[in-house]
Amino acid sequence: MSTIRNTTLSFALLTATLGLRAQDRSAGPADKKYQTEIRSLTDKPVVKKAFQTIIELEPQTLSDHILLTEIPAPPYKEMERARKYAEMLKAAGVDTVWIDNIGNVISKRKGRGGGKKTVVLEGHMDTVFPEGTDVKVVHKGDTLYAPGIADDTRALSVVLTVIKTLEKTGIETDADVLFIGTVGEEGQGDLRGVKNLFTEKGPGKIDSYIAIDGWNRESITHRALGSHRYKITFKGPGGHSSGAFGLANPHNALGRAIHYWSVAADSFSRAPGLRVTYNVGVIGGGTSVNSIPFESWMEVDMRSESPERVSGIDQLLQQAVQRALAEENKMKQRGADLTVDVKLIGDRPSGSLDTTLPLIQRAIATIQSFGSTASLRVGSTNSNIPISKQIPAITIGSGGEGGNAHALQEWWLNDKGYQGIQNALLILLAEAGIAK
Amino acid sequence: MSTIRNTTLSFALLTATLGLRAQDRSAGPADKKYQTEIRSLTDKPVVKKAFQTIIELEPQTLSDHILLTEIPAPPYKEMERARKYAEMLKAAGVDTVWIDNIGNVISKRKGRGGGKKTVVLEGHMDTVFPEGTDVKVVHKGDTLYAPGIADDTRALSVVLTVIKTLEKTGIETDADVLFIGTVGEEGQGDLRGVKNLFTEKGPGKIDSYIAIDGWNRESITHRALGSHRYKITFKGPGGHSSGAFGLANPHNALGRAIHYWSVAADSFSRAPGLRVTYNVGVIGGGTSVNSIPFESWMEVDMRSESPERVSGIDQLLQQAVQRALAEENKMKQRGADLTVDVKLIGDRPSGSLDTTLPLIQRAIATIQSFGSTASLRVGSTNSNIPISKQIPAITIGSGGEGGNAHALQEWWLNDKGYQGIQNALLILLAEAGIAK
Repeated sequence: MSTIRNTTLSFALLTATLGLRAQDRSAGPADKKYQTEIRSLTDKPVVKKAFQTIIELEPQTLSDHILLTEIPAPPYKEMERARKYAEMLKAAGVDTVWIDNIGNVISKRKGRGGGKKTVVLEGHMDTVFPEGTDVKVVHKGDTLYAPGIADDTRALSVVLTVIKTLEKTGIETDADVLFIGTVGEEGQGDLRGVKNLFTEKGPGKIDSYIAIDGWNRESITHRALGSHRYKITFKGPGGHSSGAFGLANPHNALGRAIHYWSVAADSFSRAPGLRVTYNVGVIGGGTSVNSIPFESWMEVDMRSESPERVSGIDQLLQQAVQRALAEENKMKQRGADLTVDVKLIGDRPSGSLDTTLPLIQRAIATIQSFGSTASLRVGSTNSNIPISKQIPAITIGSGGEGGNAHALQEWWLNDKGYQGIQNALLILLAEAGIAK
Repeated sequence: MSTIRNTTLSFALLTATLGLRAQDRSAGPADKKYQTEIRSLTDKPVVKKAFQTIIELEPQTLSDHILLTEIPAPPYKEMERARKYAEMLKAAGVDTVWIDNIGNVISKRKGRGGGKKTVVLEGHMDTVFPEGTDVKVVHKGDTLYAPGIADDTRALSVVLTVIKTLEKTGIETDADVLFIGTVGEEGQGDLRGVKNLFTEKGPGKIDSYIAIDGWNRESITHRALGSHRYKITFKGPGGHSSGAFGLANPHNALGRAIHYWSVAADSFSRAPGLRVTYNVGVIGGGTSVNSIPFESWMEVDMRSESPERVSGIDQLLQQAVQRALAEENKMKQRGADLTVDVKLIGDRPSGSLDTTLPLIQRAIATIQSFGSTASLRVGSTNSNIPISKQIPAITIGSGGEGGNAHALQEWWLNDKGYQGIQNALLILLAEAGIAK
């Protein structure tokens, strides 16, 4: 789960405190048709056997989980883990495995439907932790502590156990299934792994996308909290505050840009429409109190699950920046004009899918079949990309309990974790179809 | 000479390039009365003898200069140099020497006038160079290289040679003369040495103040470029950019403050009146692009030789800061109000003295007596303090040639350096009077 996804959790916490649940909502029961479909699946002896197999595989699931967690996978450095994961996927029983041009591990288990439909089940390999972080798993009672153990290495082991279960029970699907470990989901990775899957360098047409991220087995993320992030730098000649007085000052331009944007963005965010947020996070520049700086910069972030709202507030930023630039250049008494560099440092598309979509109804009905009620969420996960393209996609939880994602004290506890795997398998089978 | 004084030099360079000399101007000839006064002094055999003594003392002046340069005197750490300088002043022949509460070395040579008038002759002991800087003097041809050798250690040796000359020639003055080495002239020192001289902890009433700073023997600084410097910090609770959206953002408040100040200050600086400059030099704050920062700060600087102009532009800053604070607090959707901390980090008073003042006329006539024309300057030196109090004060040069002040490659060359000492002695004698 990405830092933005984490946001959603923090927000949920905050809004819960405030008595609000603006972003998450209960799914209620699934459409009868899908309740029936899922019941007919769980009634099949082969599915019952598969559920039992998942329980029997628990020790293997755990050892896969620990083994993978202890292979570091820092941002942009997932290769060692990827190589091992490719081996493990192959050993689990897929037909083919390859590592694509940017490092995603892609494996295919062919269906019997002649390749008419392709369903993805995936977890992300990267963690937020830098090189050199101690990733040794520490057991304290029943709880496993290690950076990345919950987010998202658990998902990688879930995928392996799903494959092993299909193999052991001899289940074949109608659709082809791609089991994938992606790179670059977190932070600056900016979803580069999943983005690549939907380019001409990807594995081909994808019809349905199931990402596993986070541990909550009752959660279905079907709305994509999109974001744009920029680093904006005003540049000028700089000089002595008194000796060169009258030169355009990049800090003045930055101050103006912040002022104009925040005023316009405030109105925009209060106007009717989906929730949109904006933030000036970090600023800097300048060498000394008595020097006109040669540069002034800020890093900004804006988010919404509505692409129009992200793009609207982004336009206000661009206008504010250009207006600030023009005004400071007009105000200067001498010297060269300021210039501005607007660099997009993050781009996660927004979108949402209708809850009547079969994939979403199947997920709701599956969670219901375990006696729970699904919660429908907005997040920023690998699903953002297919959701933004209106390709059926959800992000589901891997099961068990976890906490402290992105912190060194990250933990995961195997509290009926097998249900998370059963949940993933069942949604996959419903979506891919069991071959007759 | 302070960083601000350096400014003046850079500005002079810049304005010279632009064909302007807005800040420096030629003094023209002194009033006849003072030309006569100075001629009557230089005609005296004892003064002729003193001038000759200064030339004979050249080797001692040079060895004092090198010895003192090689004792480090970083900002706030002038004590080692101060102790040595106190010894050297005593040895040169003053009546009493003491080190005051903040580290200034003060020595007194009593006059014959019963203490009715007190004249100061001083240099500053501090350099801009941090602890650990190599201060060994390197000789390349005739030129001496060392951090601080020109600014302002040369002045300390000039003061010693003036005392020795008075002693060797038996000249007694009417006024008491204080020979002083000050602390804290540079940068963050914020003139703390000279400020202390004019408090109840100082050496008593001072009637006339002659600072030696910079090497240009033809320069008379009689106008004080005052400055105010602030570090302004907006503070708030901070939080996640999406999860805590709606909290007041300190960067927004800072941006607004910069915007409002720069617009108001621009008009103010263009309105009729003495030159005034303003600058936002350094900004910072924030932890990550997707966090609302808990603080946002800037360091600003404003200068003029008119106290009213500095105070006017300062008021505009305070108004801009309070307006920005109020607006951001009004715009917030939740959470605590922002607060602002406005910290004065530099305060050098402005002012100017009428050129008809006897001290200034005597300095002009003295420089004229060497066949040169004095240039009247604005600067930010120890004289700022007495000038702001309308106590007769000037800053004069120490003689010789120098360059690269405040740089590691600072240099000084003994090109008729003795004339700088003769110049200082003559102005002092004119101001303090030779006892009959």
